[in-house]
Formats: sequence, structure tokens, C-alpha cells
Amino acid sequence: MKEKSKTLVKIIPLGGLEQIGMNITAIEYEDTIIVVDCGLAFPEDEMLGIDLVIPDVTYLKENADKVKGLVVTHGHEDHIGAIPYIEKELGMPIYATKLTMGLIDNKLKEHNILSKVKRKIVKHGQIINLGCFRIEFIRTNHSIADAAALAIYTPQGIIIHTGDFKVDYTPVFGEMIDLPRFGELGKKGVLALMADSTNVERPGYTQSEKTVGKTFDNLFADNKDHRIIIATFASNVDRVQQIINSAYKYGRKVVIEGRSMVNIIQTASELGYINIPDNTLIEIERIKDYPDEQIVLITTGSQGENMAALSRIAASIHNKIAIKPGDVVIFSSTPIPGNEKAVFKVINELEMKGAHVIFQDTHVSGHACKEELKLMYALTKPQYAIPVHGEYRHLKRHAELAVEMGIPKDNVKILSTGDVLEIGTDRFKVTGKVPAQGILVDGLGVGDVGNIVLRDRQHLSQNGLIIVVVTLEKESNQIVAGPDIVSRGFVYVRESETLMDDCREVVQEALDNCLRKGVADWSKIKSGIKDSLGEFLWKRTKRSPMILPIITEV
Amino acid sequence: MKEKSKTLVKIIPLGGLEQIGMNITAIEYEDTIIVVDCGLAFPEDEMLGIDLVIPDVTYLKENADKVKGLVVTHGHEDHIGAIPYIEKELGMPIYATKLTMGLIDNKLKEHNILSKVKRKIVKHGQIINLGCFRIEFIRTNHSIADAAALAIYTPQGIIIHTGDFKVDYTPVFGEMIDLPRFGELGKKGVLALMADSTNVERPGYTQSEKTVGKTFDNLFADNKDHRIIIATFASNVDRVQQIINSAYKYGRKVVIEGRSMVNIIQTASELGYINIPDNTLIEIERIKDYPDEQIVLITTGSQGENMAALSRIAASIHNKIAIKPGDVVIFSSTPIPGNEKAVFKVINELEMKGAHVIFQDTHVSGHACKEELKLMYALTKPQYAIPVHGEYRHLKRHAELAVEMGIPKDNVKILSTGDVLEIGTDRFKVTGKVPAQGILVDGLGVGDVGNIVLRDRQHLSQNGLIIVVVTLEKESNQIVAGPDIVSRGFVYVRESETLMDDCREVVQEALDNCLRKGVADWSKIKSGIKDSLGEFLWKRTKRSPMILPIITEV
Repeated sequence: MKEKSKTLVKIIPLGGLEQIGMNITAIEYEDTIIVVDCGLAFPEDEMLGIDLVIPDVTYLKENADKVKGLVVTHGHEDHIGAIPYIEKELGMPIYATKLTMGLIDNKLKEHNILSKVKRKIVKHGQIINLGCFRIEFIRTNHSIADAAALAIYTPQGIIIHTGDFKVDYTPVFGEMIDLPRFGELGKKGVLALMADSTNVERPGYTQSEKTVGKTFDNLFADNKDHRIIIATFASNVDRVQQIINSAYKYGRKVVIEGRSMVNIIQTASELGYINIPDNTLIEIERIKDYPDEQIVLITTGSQGENMAALSRIAASIHNKIAIKPGDVVIFSSTPIPGNEKAVFKVINELEMKGAHVIFQDTHVSGHACKEELKLMYALTKPQYAIPVHGEYRHLKRHAELAVEMGIPKDNVKILSTGDVLEIGTDRFKVTGKVPAQGILVDGLGVGDVGNIVLRDRQHLSQNGLIIVVVTLEKESNQIVAGPDIVSRGFVYVRESETLMDDCREVVQEALDNCLRKGVADWSKIKSGIKDSLGEFLWKRTKRSPMILPIITEV
Repeated sequence: MKEKSKTLVKIIPLGGLEQIGMNITAIEYEDTIIVVDCGLAFPEDEMLGIDLVIPDVTYLKENADKVKGLVVTHGHEDHIGAIPYIEKELGMPIYATKLTMGLIDNKLKEHNILSKVKRKIVKHGQIINLGCFRIEFIRTNHSIADAAALAIYTPQGIIIHTGDFKVDYTPVFGEMIDLPRFGELGKKGVLALMADSTNVERPGYTQSEKTVGKTFDNLFADNKDHRIIIATFASNVDRVQQIINSAYKYGRKVVIEGRSMVNIIQTASELGYINIPDNTLIEIERIKDYPDEQIVLITTGSQGENMAALSRIAASIHNKIAIKPGDVVIFSSTPIPGNEKAVFKVINELEMKGAHVIFQDTHVSGHACKEELKLMYALTKPQYAIPVHGEYRHLKRHAELAVEMGIPKDNVKILSTGDVLEIGTDRFKVTGKVPAQGILVDGLGVGDVGNIVLRDRQHLSQNGLIIVVVTLEKESNQIVAGPDIVSRGFVYVRESETLMDDCREVVQEALDNCLRKGVADWSKIKSGIKDSLGEFLWKRTKRSPMILPIITEV
């Protein structure tokens, strides 16, 4: 039997469950910490005005000397999006496969820190050494090329992190997932499996990306006389490849529209991940040189995102493309929960302008379904299971699946963000908690918008604002100007002039009341105004605008 | 051949396409107008702070002497919700079946106008006379009992409005849809069919409501040892009936929770639309007197609505019910598009507290699928088709289906809200437009929140607010107090004190600049402040808070 160290490995998710999408996990042993992925989350509905959410890496900063590097599974925003922000604070070397690194490089360039960050491209099958860990990159399939699972060799055993994966026996680019290697590791003995939970509720197997190619061929054949517009995920290079294949076959020119898609396809093309026949791609300005039936436009906006190209086309505010009756618009995507309404809005707008929208049957998922997950357990036979990547309901179903696959119930754990899990051959326990609230990014501000600001925005958005301005004379505290009342977002003022007059009277009375009683404390005068006016407005309108009394002194 | 009048019938949707849910249609002929349904819409995401949207009935008010009555197809909010608001303006008599009228009465009572409104209960098969129209109520099936289609006999021919309908051969309450009557009318000759488009994209037939009863029986049998909580639509009386049937069979007491469900079930019970065995229903306070496995709680909140009972239970803020590990929670519903994220949030919260959530297989739709719609066309054989009740994409698919069913393309029309469609045996044309914007209701205010107020709320919600207060001396225009700066919803102030100091300096400079140039016009001073501060803040933070300069004079 192998001698086991008494020190345990720690697994610490610094994002994830509470901030879906913010995938980042620290794995620690003695003086070594490695970070797996570094994604960003998009703001929840109630995070008004927030652009994005990045992980709190206080724990990593406090242990900066231990942090040996960042290993990245694949190039999606929820796995690489926070890298520039975090690199500015930590400066750790990055390890990733070629396409993934290409996309990371784009981000580092945007933030002007490319030259400051050490980066090393890793091949599938390659093993790197970081402190006391060895990390092997294992080929997987996903909805972006060059995805990898990680086998992390620790002194306590092997931890496998699948990243986002599916089993695709006939991938569009590159090879199928390295199933034998997972089997070999299973034979050696795997301490823990951290696997993708996204599709655990779906029975069976995920379809191969290649099936979509056949559907495109059929759609191109059926719509020979129409312009074709296809919306899909900017990062799904294989999907774009298949659209280009169909376009070439049917003699169409291809236009790519939408900043993120243009960037990713350019990177993929430079690195050899997409094969575009000569004279197939044209600039958007040249559309007018070709008849409609010789054009296919590939665009962003498949999630109904407000500012994406397709949404602007649908709303007739795109400056280069306008929908014509007869256009065929294909959504090669499924709405992510929460985006349904926005997607349907875009579809309605497109159809109103005479487009024929095809919404079904041109998408396959990039995530393993139930049987694929079972396969992963059957190959790796882990001692412990830690479901990752999903909402709680997914992690819960995944935990049930792990138990079905023979893992004892006590060896399966759903971690909350910030949990410190101690793991070893005879221990599997959450023993602590590190700070791991998401940090809100608004414009250039990182972390300067917190709960109070959000609460104010919420209040203002629902009820608007009334400002009361009074000028008092120093010493005597007599009113020398005002009260004046200004409102925004409350009621349409012309309709409500008498209401404003009444407000002024209520405030005047509250002020008189205070001054009569000799109240000189401004905060007391302010709360007197707030209370009286608040009560009056609630009675009169059943609304509670934010009331801001401002007192100046001359 | 019948002699046809030269006057045409007008069909005017006053809600619908642009305000999904706000179902209200005026049908006019010479000095007669009848109104079909009078629903409300729930606010779109961008209508910040708005409670609900009701139809603009300016056209009806301008023709008040012609309006003979309101005929209502069924008792759902999107068909009856605006009645109290509109009755206050129009005072028209209401005609509806018994349960529908019971639910309308509840609304009129809430608004204290029950005694002021004439109401007449109509039976299925009965015909009423309103001006020059005769209106026949025809039995249909839907997800609420007592639904009716309307055959409106006009001097130009028969118009059939299906209301919301499905074909249920084995309804839980009452009889199946009166298909033979639709056939008879088809034989007589139908001028136009206005039919429900909701499920036109779904192939086949909608399942019978009764199939859900069997599923409940199975779930009750499978979960004998657990408390069962079932969330469903408050108005689905048949669904509640079936849950009660299963509860009775398995010896459980039933608790109904959620204000709207309690009200509707009480009305349905009083009017004989639901059959509750003695000693089955208990008050929520008595739950503690029974073991968990003898309780089933039926609750509102199946759409994840923030304030509904189930959401409060999930968030642990319900004052009478707390989730215990082992509780089984069944969602007997499908999320309406836009509600998915809220529903999943509630599910996650319930599962985190140890509940087992069952989300599938306990719901059937109340709307006709493709084959049922075809059946309706096959029976009524209308000359014209006017798809109603759906988003544009649904109406478009429905129009295609009508053409498939043999209606000439020119005889099918999708109407926008406010369109005036002139219809007769030899005319079918939109000839005008009446005002039909939705009216926003916020608290007690009806129509006092318009675009400017909403734009301000939007701006405030995204970026917050900066108020600049300056006091100037009369005549001299010298600054005697300020500039003071107050912000809300912008940045957390302690973090940004230097920012606020810098703001003050920028404003001071802008003011000095104005005063130096002798600018005395306040509006010019204000825009000077706004421009300088706005530019400064954008450069520094990439944000654009609302800037409100306030000048007072002493």
C-alpha cells in the first residue's frame, strides 16, 4: 500500500453554485495552490446596471506565494471571462490548449496586459508540473474545440475535473474524447471526480455536432431561393464550420456579423481550427454585389441579446442589414433559461417584417446527458464524487446519479461557493469557508457597487424619486428658500401639478412643525419631512418613491 | 340568396398582439357595438414599477351610446382582469356563464362597484340580443370550467370567436365541447372564425385534463410517507378538484394556500363547480394536528411569482409553512415564457432545504393544438380567418394553418391592436386605426405613468443619480452655499469619497466658468454643470448617472 501523507488536499470552489457561470476552483496541498478555470457570471435580474460579476479571490491573494498557476479547461466566457481581472491582481502563469489560449490572449490584449502574463500552451495528453501537483490535459468534446478534462495528480490521489464535456464519436474538428485514458486512470484509482452536471436531467446521449451539418444541408436545399441568416453562439466554431461547409456546397458567400463572432472566428482561423475555402467569406459591405440566394449571414444574437447583431437587424436598427420578406432566419441554438422572452421578441419582430423563422432542430447541446455521465463514472470509478457546473437542482440530480453508480452516499458532496473541502483517502469533509461573494463590475468600477447601491437602484426603478430642497438661515434656522420639490420617475408632472402643490404643503407643514418645536438637528428635520411626505403619498397614490430631503444653509 | 346590407361589420381588437394577454375586441355594426372580453396584461420587463396594463377604451367612450354590452368567454385574468377599470368608465352590462360571472363579481366587489354594474348569467346554448347582434354562447373546454365560444349573428353573417379552448372528450367537470353545434353553424355558413392560436405550433391533440388525475394518483401512491405540496394555477378549478380527489382517496387532509386560490376555490365551491368531501379541507393553522403523510398543501406560486405562497415557503419567509427534508413538491404547471428563471430559482431553494421537487408530467395545456384547430376549421368552414390570442409568431403559424385548411390567403388576416377591419361577404379590409396603446397602472394611478417616467426609472435603475445643489444670491448670482453633491444608486460612497470631492471641483469649475462669462440663465448654468460632470464621470468611471442640478436663490 502506498504511504499517504497526513496533509489533506483542499478543494475550494470560489464561484459556481451561487453565481452560475463563474467557474473557478482552487485546489490546494501544503504550499501549492492551483486554480482551475476563471470564469465570469452575467448579472442576475436584480443586479441593476451591473455589467458582469467576477470571483472574489481574497483567499488566493492572501496565499499568493502558494499559487502556482491557472489551468483552463476550455475557452468559454464562464471559464475564461474573469481572467484579465484576476490576472491584474494575481499574475499567475496560465496553462491551456491552443485555441483556448488564443481566446484568452484576445482578452489579455483588450485589457493591455498580454505581455505581463506568462502563458504556456499544453497539448492533449501532456502533463505539466505545478508545485507538488502534476496535471494531465485529457481530450474531451464540447461545443467549442480543444476542450480538456484535467487529471490532477495529488499526494492523496488523482482528482479528475471533466470541465464541460460531451461524448462525440464523430466530432467536426479533431478527435473524439479520450475515453480509454479515463479508463486507464480508473484502473489506477481515482480519488475524486468533478463532472459537468448541466444535462443530468436529460435521458440518453447528446447528439453529435455532426448531425447539425446534415440538417443545415437540408435547410439549404429547401431554401434555395432565399437569403439565409443563421444565428448561433459566437464561440461554436464547429457550428460555423458546418454552416460554411453547407454554404460552399450550395454556392453561397458567407458573411460573419457580430463583434464577438468575428473575433473568435478570426482567432480560430489563424490557429487552424476552422477551414474556410477561398472566396467564400466576404465583407458585409459586399452583400449588395450578390443576389439574395447566394448569401448566408452568420450572426450573433441567438439568445435575443439586446445589442447583438440579430436583435438590431430584427429591430431595424442595424446599419447594414435589413430584413426582406422571404428571408429565412435559422436559430441554431436553444434559449438559456431566462432568455426565452427576449428570443421570442426577436422572432416576432423578424416574422412581422416577413422573415420565415426556423427555430427548432438545428442545435445539439455541448454537455453530457445522463448516459454519458454514467459512462464517465463507469470508466473512472472514483472514490468520491463532487458534482460541478449547474444549478442546485442539477447538482442534486447528479449526486443521485453518482449514488446510483455505486458511490456511497457519504462520498458525494455538493459544495457551496467558498466551502473548503478536505479530501484524502479517509477523509471527505467541509471544514471551513473562505470569502467568495461575486464582485460586481459596473463600467470601470470593480467592486464599488454593493448592496446599498443596488437597493437604491431597485427602489428608484420601481417608484422613482422626490427631492425636497430647503434653504435655512444659519443660527436662526428660518426658511429662506423653498421648500422646492423636484421629481423624476414618479408621475408625469403635467398630470400631477396639484399633487406637487399638495406635496409642498405637506413638507411646509412638517417643517413648521419642526421649527415650532425648536428642532435644530438636520437629520431630525429630514426624517420629519420623509415621514410626513411618505405617508401622504402612500395614502394618495399607493406608491413609495424615494424621498430625498436636502437642506442647505446660508 | 339572402339580401345583404351595404353596411359592413367592423372588428376592432383593442388589445392583443402588442399587449399579450389584454384580450378585448369591439365588434360594431351601425349603432351597435359589443365588446368581447376585457383582460389585463402584465407589465413587460422594461415597464419598471408598473403593476398592470389595461386597455385604452377611448374609442368605446367616444361611441358610448352604441356600446350595448360586454360578452365574456371565460374567467381568466387575461379576459376579465380589466373589467372593473373599464366598467368605471363605461358602465356596460356584462354577459357571461355562471362561474365566469362569479369571478367577475369578486373583482367588482374588490373595487366596490358590484351594485353599479348590470350583470346577466347566460347558459351554454342560450342566445342573447344586443342591439342588432344576437350572441350564442357555445360550450367549450379550457383550463377553467364554464368556458364558452361565441357565435355572433351579424347582418353580414355569423362570426365565431372561440375564446380560449381545447377539445376535451373527458372533461373533469361538465360536458365536452359542443362540437356538433360548430358543425351546424358551419353548415349554415360562417363569415369569420376568430380562434385561439396559443398552441398552434404543437402537433397533435392536447391531452385531457383527466390524464393529470391518474398521474396524481400515482404520485400519491409513490409518496405515501411524505408531506405533499402541489403548486398550480389558482384558477384551474378542475386541477384542484383532481388533487382533492387523490387526497381523499389516500386519506389526506387538504390545505389551500395563496389568496387568489382561496378566493377562486371558494367561489367555485359556492357555485357548485367543485366537490369537496366533508372533513377534507382544513385551515392552514391545523396542519400541526396531523402527521406529514396525511397532509397535502395546494398553493399558488407555480410560476415562481415573487410574492406567491410557494416562493415565500421556498425562501423561508412564509409565516405558517416551512419546508422539511422529505417534503415532496409537485409543480402542476409549465412556466410561461419569461418565468423560467424565477421557477428554477424556487426549485433550487426548495431542493436546498431538502425537498424533492417533481417538475414534469403533471400538467396539460388548456389550449387547442394543431389537430384541434384543424377540426375547428373543418367544422365551421369559415369564409375568413382572423387568428387571435398569441404572439405574432403564433398568429403567423395559425394563418398558415388556415390556408392549409383551404381558406384563400387573402381571406386570412393578422390584426394589430387598434386595427379597424371591415368585414362583409365581399369585403375584408383594414380601413383604419383607433387609439389602443395599453394604459399603465401603478398603485392607484391609472395612466399617470408614461414614457418619460419609465425612461427616467430605466436611467435611474441602470446608473443611479447625482444631485448637485447650489444656492445663489439674487441679483449678484454669487454662490452663497454649495455646490453640494448627493448621490444615490451610483457608487458606494465611502469607497468613493475622493470621487465625490473631484465631482465637487468639476462642478465648481463649471459654475465659475458660467459666472465669469456672466451667464445668468439658470437653465444654461444647469446644462453647463450637467455637461462637465457627465463628461468627467464617463471618463473616470464609464458610467452615466442621471445628473440633477438644483439651483436655489436667496
